[in-house]
Amino acid sequence: MTHNTATTPDESVAIITPASLLQHWQVHRKLSRKVLATFSEKELFTFSIDGMRPYDELAKEMIGLASAGMNGIITGKWETTPLLDHFNQEANITSKQELLEAWDEVTEQIDNFWAQIPAARFQDRVLAFGRYENSVIDTILYLIDNEIHHRGQGYVYLRALGLEPPAFWDRS
Amino acid sequence: MTHNTATTPDESVAIITPASLLQHWQVHRKLSRKVLATFSEKELFTFSIDGMRPYDELAKEMIGLASAGMNGIITGKWETTPLLDHFNQEANITSKQELLEAWDEVTEQIDNFWAQIPAARFQDRVLAFGRYENSVIDTILYLIDNEIHHRGQGYVYLRALGLEPPAFWDRS
Repeated sequence: MTHNTATTPDESVAIITPASLLQHWQVHRKLSRKVLATFSEKELFTFSIDGMRPYDELAKEMIGLASAGMNGIITGKWETTPLLDHFNQEANITSKQELLEAWDEVTEQIDNFWAQIPAARFQDRVLAFGRYENSVIDTILYLIDNEIHHRGQGYVYLRALGLEPPAFWDRS
Repeated sequence: MTHNTATTPDESVAIITPASLLQHWQVHRKLSRKVLATFSEKELFTFSIDGMRPYDELAKEMIGLASAGMNGIITGKWETTPLLDHFNQEANITSKQELLEAWDEVTEQIDNFWAQIPAARFQDRVLAFGRYENSVIDTILYLIDNEIHHRGQGYVYLRALGLEPPAFWDRS
């Protein structure tokens, strides 16, 4: 029996590396920032569809989970360190500008935390946010997927508001 | 200068392998199938918010892109082979049951095509759907992200219809 490398997938191959996954996430975050910026000041904090949360709350969740998640992976403390804590009822962000600033701060945090993740750490099991047992890599994929999920909902809010969202496929 | 493997990310490490990415996608597809199944027969084909496409069209896009995308990566033919062709105006799927059957057929197709992707193929450049130049891995990530994006919109449709969507975090 011969080993045919042309047709046998090599399961140890790096089809996604730490650097490429960081790039993938940050490109998504650029699009998510554009979606956030497309809302009008007032409707960002007030508009919703059938009892769902207004988009400011979805954006705060993205910001809070990304910040606390990356902090937790590095330090074991599943809490935000910057401007805003989604889980902290005292957090008092009331303007689009502050939300965009928190967004940008977390973008930098992600880059900084990422550089501190040893390669082997991605397969470690963690109790994310003190509640969700998972590997580090799947925890990070959850953060990205959750952002895409809620951002997709933001597209519907924007359409319902008569605002044109940024093109999903445009990652420039 | 010493090389500290505990703190230096190894960019060649496989944090995501072909097998783990397939698993990741198929778990997402299980959730997407549940969302599709939650719609009522009639509203699946008729309900929309402010000029957006009804959910049957979003599901057909997911089905068509996944099927044609995987086919293209393997054979160079960026077209669907099964029940349904999203880009083919002749396609005439008019029931939820047919859509679910097409969904399940594509789930199998993905498994079958995936087993034929040589590891090195993931970094190849392709002209996806004859139009989008990208690496194979980024083309596949786009298919997954596009599914999460439109599924998130389906959550809003379901809420607006007074239907409870499956929990986003429940991937069982």
